[in-house]
This record gives sequence, C-alpha cells and structure tokens, in this order.
Amino acid sequence: MKEIKKTLSIVGLGLIGGCYAKALRDEFDVIYGIDLDEKALSYSESHKIIDKGFVDPKIPLSKSDLTVICLYPNLVEKFIEKNKDNFKSNSVITDAVGVKGDMIDRVVEKLPSNIDFVGAHPMAGREVQGVWNSDKKIFSGANFIITPHPSNHLKNLDLIERLAYKMGFKMVTRITPEKHDEIISFTSQLSHAIAVALVNSDEKNFDTNVFIGDSFRDLTRIAMINEDLWDNLFMGNRKNLIKKIEKFEESLDIIKDALKKEDSESLKEEFKKSTLRRKEIS
Amino acid sequence: MKEIKKTLSIVGLGLIGGCYAKALRDEFDVIYGIDLDEKALSYSESHKIIDKGFVDPKIPLSKSDLTVICLYPNLVEKFIEKNKDNFKSNSVITDAVGVKGDMIDRVVEKLPSNIDFVGAHPMAGREVQGVWNSDKKIFSGANFIITPHPSNHLKNLDLIERLAYKMGFKMVTRITPEKHDEIISFTSQLSHAIAVALVNSDEKNFDTNVFIGDSFRDLTRIAMINEDLWDNLFMGNRKNLIKKIEKFEESLDIIKDALKKEDSESLKEEFKKSTLRRKEIS
Repeated sequence: MKEIKKTLSIVGLGLIGGCYAKALRDEFDVIYGIDLDEKALSYSESHKIIDKGFVDPKIPLSKSDLTVICLYPNLVEKFIEKNKDNFKSNSVITDAVGVKGDMIDRVVEKLPSNIDFVGAHPMAGREVQGVWNSDKKIFSGANFIITPHPSNHLKNLDLIERLAYKMGFKMVTRITPEKHDEIISFTSQLSHAIAVALVNSDEKNFDTNVFIGDSFRDLTRIAMINEDLWDNLFMGNRKNLIKKIEKFEESLDIIKDALKKEDSESLKEEFKKSTLRRKEIS
Repeated sequence: MKEIKKTLSIVGLGLIGGCYAKALRDEFDVIYGIDLDEKALSYSESHKIIDKGFVDPKIPLSKSDLTVICLYPNLVEKFIEKNKDNFKSNSVITDAVGVKGDMIDRVVEKLPSNIDFVGAHPMAGREVQGVWNSDKKIFSGANFIITPHPSNHLKNLDLIERLAYKMGFKMVTRITPEKHDEIISFTSQLSHAIAVALVNSDEKNFDTNVFIGDSFRDLTRIAMINEDLWDNLFMGNRKNLIKKIEKFEESLDIIKDALKKEDSESLKEEFKKSTLRRKEIS
C-alpha cells in the first residue's frame, strides 16, 4: 500500500539523493530530480531512478508534495532561501544533513508559514560518491533521526517517520537539533576523526599492508573521506567534537598510563568495561 | 598433494588452535590435541577436528613432526620449558603469539639443538572464543608473519610458510621479532586501544544504540576483548605501544587544533592524506 500518491522532488542527485529516490520509488507517483550536474540527471532518468530531471528547480518544486534536499550542509540553507517562494503550498521539505546547528531555526524563519520543514538525518553512507553508486540497501537496518521544530505539524513528522520505515530504516528517533548534534559528534564525527588520525599516524617504516588484520582494516575504512562534506560536518559541529575528542583522549590516557605503570589490573578493567558496553550495541 | 604425511600436535584447543587443526586436516595423517580442558578435547574428537586428545602432552609431543602451540602469550614459554625433553627429535615447533619480545631467544636457548622453533603470527581472530567457534575461513585472505631466529633451518621456515599458504593466508612475510613487535603495536594493539577508549569515552547521556551508523559499529567491534589475552599482548609490547599511542594522539591533535582554529584548509589536508593512504591498503 502506497503511503501517499503524490509528487516527490529530490534536490541533489548524489549518493544519498539516489538512495532516497530508489527507496521511495513505490511511495510516489512522480519523482523529479534537481541537480546542476546534467550527467547525474540523464543517468538517473535513463535508469528510471527519477521520472524527469531539472537544472532549474522552479517547476518541479512548485508541483512537489515532498521535497528532499540532499545537498552539502552549507548549501541547504542557501537553496531554500533562493527558492523560498517556489515550493508548493502546504508541502513538506526535509533534508539529510548530518549536523543541524541552528540551521533549522533560520530556515523556518525564511520559509512561508504554509511550508513545513522537517529536519532529518539518515545515518547511512558509503565511501563512494555519486548517484551511480546509490543503492537503497544502504538504508536497510540503519538509524534515522528526526529533529522536530516547534512549528512542525505532527502529521508531517509522522509522515517522515513512516517514509523512513518504508525506506528500510530500522529505528526512527525524534530529538532536538542541539541534542542531535551532541550525540552525533560522538557516534559519527569522532569515529571519523579517529580513523583519519590513525591512518595519518602511520610512520610507514614498513609496508603496512602486509601486517594488518581485520581490526585495522575495519577501523580505517572510514578514513577514506570526502573532504569537503566532512569539513562542513566537522566545522558545523566543532564545539561538540572538540569536547568529544578531549573526552576520548582522557579515556585513551587511562590505557597509556596503565601501560606506563605496568598496571594490568587497570588495563583489564578498561577491557571489561568496553566489552560490556559494546555488547549493548547491536 | 599433501605437503607432509606426518603427525601434528596442537597445544591449546581454543579458537586459533581449532582453526589450525581444521586448516591443516589434509596436510597430516594424524592430528593430536593437547589441552587441560577435557570438554574442548572431547568436542574436538567427536567433531573430527583432532584424531585424539591428551591432557598430558608427553606421548603426543614425542610422536609429532610439527607442534603448533596456541596458548596465551605468557604460557608458551612455560609450556616449552616444562616439555623441552618431550619433543620428537628433529621436529619443528611453531607458535601463534601476537607479540614476540625476546621470547624466541629464550625458548631457543632452552630447547635441545635438534628441535627447531619457528616463531609465527597468524594475523586473524574473532571476538568469540573456544574451539566450538573455530572456522578455517578465519585464516582465509589474512596476513601471516614468520619471525625467523638465526638458529632456524631454512627448510623449516619454508615449511611453515608453505603450510600458511595451504591454510589460506594470502601473504606470508618474514621479519625480525623486534620489527614485528614494532609494526604490530601500530596495526593491531593501537587499533584495539583506540576501540576500547572510544567505547569507554561514551558519556551515555543518550541511548547510543539509536544514534550509531556503520562507522561507529565497525570502529568498536574489537572493543569486545578477551581481557587476559590482550593484557598479555599489551604488556608484552608496552614500550612500542606507548610510542604509537603518543604518535596517534599527535595526529589527532592536528585535527583538534584545526577545529579550534576553524582552519578548514588544515583539516581538509588531513582528510586528503588519510584518503590517499587508506586507498593503498587492500
């Protein structure tokens, strides 16, 4: 059963935009794609990911009941400001940005009051880019976060939540943008900072490749990183991230100090603690 | 074609001992298992992982052309010392310990000169324990390191290398114990220290579980850690590991400082460096 029989626009046909289009294919009658890259549009049209592509957003936005903006963090607000009068009356806009800051407050202020912006963060991604790598399986079993604003209509929050479950996300959580950013600085940006730092601390005295096990491989996979996107995400959440890095360094120093003092008891305590905590995570 | 038609003893029928027995099944006529845990022995016998199990090592060692010692790091030397007169003349012993230190020097000194000890490190493992979880696929495609001693016969180094490839390892490298420990402190122990510290730095203000993506999951999988084994490995390599932790912290501080100074250029440089380096790793 289709959730709504209506028109969807995807703004930004990259990896995540492509995933949204594919995962929502059965939920909408018409899917428009909006992108400056005509190659992404023609690929998406010819692969039936979208029904029609547009470089100029005016026409598709005016017809869309839902607009999903999958642009880089620093471009979302600019896009909305520029197009604030182009959205269909009573339509819903959502985004996919991994750091919220006070972007939602500012966007809501700019938009006409009959357009409802529902902030969202699909916690899924890959080390590859582009609509050609999009695959709706990327969303399968992942977490999805909605960051409600006081102006949001409950029915629209519910709509985004239902669509998230339809797209394959396993858990949808609602949380304020502030709390979202705090927890995400720990679970996402800190992980990436660590992976990057680990790879960069390689002194390369040896051919590392022949001395690695699965642990190093897993830990550093995300060190292959889109520098413009992640600069946006890191800088957009810098205060939280600095605190989390400091907290992590304290935790690592407990291990370092135990090594310096040959204190096996403290070291084993840290191992037991992490084992118990990690087992709580599915 | 079988490499040698002879007798093998596995000392310590845990996860790795079980993997060795399974992966070498076709290379030996008889496989003996030695363990203090009679449950591990009877399980291994009834599942045809070994031909016969022994609590007392004397008889099986006296018949074995190859003995693979899969005990905890701190027990390998004790086992060899206690059994130094039980090994078959002209037989080969190897181990699976992840940190070598000067253990090999001491072991060689204690052993009769007609017993050849070839130090080895199969770089593979799992977060589960016990022979019941052993699976020869764990070795498939992994790295294998041999740490030769001047007393080793070349033919025995070659034997262990050939058997490693037969067991499914994709790359066998020979390196001194000292260099082994230095590089392993980076690729293995540091990875585990980071994963443990990351999980333990969770302030748990939120239900972390609903806010994690694949990155956090991958990074922290190895935080489920066997505390006795890894205490052995960390303490056995503490000087190298302390240096690698400090080097890693310097690398993380470059990111932290870039965040503090809102210096996107430096941050992006770190991202570009890690992306390039990580791409070199298969």
